[in-house]
Amino acid sequence: MTGNKLTLAGLAKLAGVSTSTASRALHNNPLIKAETRQRIQDLAKTHNFSLNAAASRLRSQKTNVIAVILNLDYETEQSIDDPFLLKVVGDINQAVNQQGYELLLSNSRMAGEDWYGYFVAGRRADGVIVVGQGKQQTQIERAFAAGTPLVAWGDPSSESDYPVVGSDNFRGGQLAACHLLEKGAGRILFLGDPDHAEIGERYRGCLGELEAARASLELLPIDLTSESAYRAINLRLQSAGLNFDGVFACSDMVAFGAMKALKERYVSVPNDVRIVGFDNIAMAEVSYPSLTTIAQNTRMAAQSLVSKLLIQLEGKKTCAEQLPIELICRQSS
Amino acid sequence: MTGNKLTLAGLAKLAGVSTSTASRALHNNPLIKAETRQRIQDLAKTHNFSLNAAASRLRSQKTNVIAVILNLDYETEQSIDDPFLLKVVGDINQAVNQQGYELLLSNSRMAGEDWYGYFVAGRRADGVIVVGQGKQQTQIERAFAAGTPLVAWGDPSSESDYPVVGSDNFRGGQLAACHLLEKGAGRILFLGDPDHAEIGERYRGCLGELEAARASLELLPIDLTSESAYRAINLRLQSAGLNFDGVFACSDMVAFGAMKALKERYVSVPNDVRIVGFDNIAMAEVSYPSLTTIAQNTRMAAQSLVSKLLIQLEGKKTCAEQLPIELICRQSS
Repeated sequence: MTGNKLTLAGLAKLAGVSTSTASRALHNNPLIKAETRQRIQDLAKTHNFSLNAAASRLRSQKTNVIAVILNLDYETEQSIDDPFLLKVVGDINQAVNQQGYELLLSNSRMAGEDWYGYFVAGRRADGVIVVGQGKQQTQIERAFAAGTPLVAWGDPSSESDYPVVGSDNFRGGQLAACHLLEKGAGRILFLGDPDHAEIGERYRGCLGELEAARASLELLPIDLTSESAYRAINLRLQSAGLNFDGVFACSDMVAFGAMKALKERYVSVPNDVRIVGFDNIAMAEVSYPSLTTIAQNTRMAAQSLVSKLLIQLEGKKTCAEQLPIELICRQSS
Repeated sequence: MTGNKLTLAGLAKLAGVSTSTASRALHNNPLIKAETRQRIQDLAKTHNFSLNAAASRLRSQKTNVIAVILNLDYETEQSIDDPFLLKVVGDINQAVNQQGYELLLSNSRMAGEDWYGYFVAGRRADGVIVVGQGKQQTQIERAFAAGTPLVAWGDPSSESDYPVVGSDNFRGGQLAACHLLEKGAGRILFLGDPDHAEIGERYRGCLGELEAARASLELLPIDLTSESAYRAINLRLQSAGLNFDGVFACSDMVAFGAMKALKERYVSVPNDVRIVGFDNIAMAEVSYPSLTTIAQNTRMAAQSLVSKLLIQLEGKKTCAEQLPIELICRQSS
């Protein structure tokens, strides 16, 4: 089907461009003007030239692929169905595409123990973006130490050898606390498990503000799902009645589970209980009442993750980045 | 970093297994028992053997990668942020992994015009799953005619040269109509654009049932987003008042937009207006009231898409498949 008599260099000469421009054009790299790409691709067709990507990778040592590892603790909590996680993957995909790369979706089960061998030496991808630091930080550290170009989405304030991009979770907790106080809440529940690094920051940020204002914060350390929030609020109302007037949920999905339990028992949101979530997924705008939340800027995060990876591919060093977060006031508070 | 003196065949001999078993073990293919994989991987480490995936692809002609093309009409409507679309991608990823493949996330902009050349001849992937038939069916047909192993997620009842996997959308429309009638609704709005193949089937299935029962169905041909549903219902209530008692939305996100507009105007769901959605995304269970919907079995669909692709990779033919759908009764009706 191929019959490549013409080499890439020959094609480039015919087109009057450099070999790298010809290669990029054939890879449909947006760095090359659309017209030029089309012209070179037409020329390749006319001469029955098919760029053999695998062979070209062997030559150039580049795959033009970035692997995204979903580093989840499968036994527990958050699954690949989680809307926020999927939003992060979608935004990374767009950022990867904008740079002329494609995204290989992988996970720690597929990649096994030796990420360097599997992705880089095995030429599956030029570098790796890890989504979720999970409980396997040593594995990420090992892969980075072995020379894998790598960036992680997680808690940028944590100590780690590899660069981490993530939201200012502590400040997010502070913003949520201040907002709940301003709206008149003083007995607040925190829904989420602070053993998870990012959630721990949110909890501590919130706690500091509330203690300073002499308001109370009670911790319900639940899993990162709507169902566990729904169950926890139901149990709580049964056992202790309505003895809280604010909820700070560690994610929007958790907030929706809490809201549902409250509304089923005719507790008014926001009149009786004010609710603040975290993430700003699409549904936060659409629910009724719409959900006040701390927005994580996943689009900006995705661009930062990809650009920090490209910097490493050029052999340079890079560092952690903490992204600003924002309070979005809606009807639930 | 590599220094491969040992060949794959040599490694296999050392391990006392066939070359293909050794290769699969090194690729971490779950078809090989975990113990055996670990033993062969340890042996490879001891002998400093690094499987070069790109070179192995050149030999085996296989990439062990399946490309997923998100075939969206970017100018309009549904975006990569759409929760249902992301759920489909997540489920395909799991099905792909289960078969020992990885998923390359691509789109029609990256892949350009010549999908065969880009993915197959270019050895980026062994085959292609197209999500969304969009308005570019000729491009899918061209890629399939050129010999690209290919399956599409879409409307399985449509005429097409290539195999399509999708829900029984017509039956879904019938189920929604019957349910709304049984709940006492007789003046029903359909929210969605029937020019989109799958939505057209849903509309026609619903219309047939309602006409047989002499109930009315009015079409509001809106975009596939919550926002357009919210706007459409608001305009409708302003101009004509509440002269309908049922809503059949072409997606859950559209249903949530409608529900929000109704509740903001103190219209009771389900007492004044019964709502049925389509898809069964995670939020349908969590919203208040929870959303009655026609569930698409995306997990089964993902497994079918992948198995039909693997059949083609073995050089065999395959055909379209229509998956059963299911009415999930919840509080909104």
